[in-house]
Amino acid sequence: MTLSILIDGAVPASLSHAIAANDRGFHYGDGLFETALLTGGSVRFLDDHLQRLAAGCERLGIPAPEPETLLSEISRVTAGLHSGVLKIVISRGAAARGYRPSPDAQPTRLIAVYAAPEESAGRSICLRWCDTRLGRNARLAGIKHLNRLEQVLAQAEWQTVSIDEGLMLDTEGELVCGTASNVFVVREGVLVTPDLRFCGVRGVMRAQVLQAAAAMGIATSEEPLWPHDVEAASEVFLTNAVCGIRPVSALGPLSWNEHPVARRLMDALKL
Amino acid sequence: MTLSILIDGAVPASLSHAIAANDRGFHYGDGLFETALLTGGSVRFLDDHLQRLAAGCERLGIPAPEPETLLSEISRVTAGLHSGVLKIVISRGAAARGYRPSPDAQPTRLIAVYAAPEESAGRSICLRWCDTRLGRNARLAGIKHLNRLEQVLAQAEWQTVSIDEGLMLDTEGELVCGTASNVFVVREGVLVTPDLRFCGVRGVMRAQVLQAAAAMGIATSEEPLWPHDVEAASEVFLTNAVCGIRPVSALGPLSWNEHPVARRLMDALKL
Repeated sequence: MTLSILIDGAVPASLSHAIAANDRGFHYGDGLFETALLTGGSVRFLDDHLQRLAAGCERLGIPAPEPETLLSEISRVTAGLHSGVLKIVISRGAAARGYRPSPDAQPTRLIAVYAAPEESAGRSICLRWCDTRLGRNARLAGIKHLNRLEQVLAQAEWQTVSIDEGLMLDTEGELVCGTASNVFVVREGVLVTPDLRFCGVRGVMRAQVLQAAAAMGIATSEEPLWPHDVEAASEVFLTNAVCGIRPVSALGPLSWNEHPVARRLMDALKL
Repeated sequence: MTLSILIDGAVPASLSHAIAANDRGFHYGDGLFETALLTGGSVRFLDDHLQRLAAGCERLGIPAPEPETLLSEISRVTAGLHSGVLKIVISRGAAARGYRPSPDAQPTRLIAVYAAPEESAGRSICLRWCDTRLGRNARLAGIKHLNRLEQVLAQAEWQTVSIDEGLMLDTEGELVCGTASNVFVVREGVLVTPDLRFCGVRGVMRAQVLQAAAAMGIATSEEPLWPHDVEAASEVFLTNAVCGIRPVSALGPLSWNEHPVARRLMDALKL
């Protein structure tokens, strides 16, 4: 449910007629987005989200919105709201037909707050392996761009409510992420997460976890991981900006009862 | 320039406020498109375009629009127009936030005619190699989906008007296509085109060319190709639905003066 929305700084007269017919977000997925948690009336890790958005704009050659503009619109869109999910979409804007970006296009800004998901923080979750793979392309790796068909197809694979999230491999069989989360495993006391050099999104919560772990004296590593690394892990958890840290209790025949590292990080990050 | 447009069967009151704020095409590139040539008042190879669109919908699990609906709307949108580019976009429609497709979502249909490009049919063209690579994912290969950031970034690489199109390799270095075209090479009398098993779009004009060549007794092959196959070719041409067949005259230091196979095919297909 949309609680509040601004498009290019204005409240749209109609939610069902809000985006230009020739917006490049709609035609090519030509843009970026952020999803952040609104809690206690403020946006958690907002600076990190805006930094990643700006980095994504630079990578795609989209003129980044002025930070003051974004901050002002985020303030307007969250005014009077206590909790929810803040979403920011920046597309390259409306333009004539054709892939080539026009230097004249004005990027489109959609900033909205949606109802928060019904999710108990820290609840342990059950996973599955997705059949849908992620293509490798270092040019697009790490940023949160709008080309998300692989994630859509992966989530379409299951409807079972007992399965909370699916793990995705890339086309070479390397572990990358959940469909909407990053993944961490604990291996001989070291906290390890995929390095995302070929695909996947560098999550804001992922960075917070790596930083908090280092501050607590937990060794960390970003490196290539494979399914057997999950199978051999003493602990597995997922992260994303909205749900924070979610310990994994089961994945097919595998199960984990204790999540000491995840619990310590949740305490440290006040999740 | 948009000459005519229908969205879900209706003329939008405003082109700049036409698509729902929560359309999955805008948020995830969750959909498909077709680009066809309107010439002499009718849409060239319309059946083939509609068949590919239906196949793409099936692949993505998007309910395909009824053919009668599409035909009726195409007829309305092209009424009174002699030439132009017909574009059809089908997205999975407006829906609540989240990657998982909702079974309730009604797909969005955008059907528009744009001004035809100023392009002399059959003009020979100059190419470059693009630095932007295509990720491999057989799950998405062949269909004309809306995740087109790689093509956008590839076309952003050059602005030189003397370069007409760029050739793209996949991340493993295999030749795939032009940024908005399929590629054919003639090698020892055989007409060869990439098999597109990992990426690229199976163009309507590509299929027409393969079929026409076979009918003319020219041997054809769809197989993996590499840059050296282009360098060794006696003839190179590109195809797409709007421009038909375009013989290639130059690519970096390479040049081709004669295009006997392309010319025969252009005659056979009345391009």
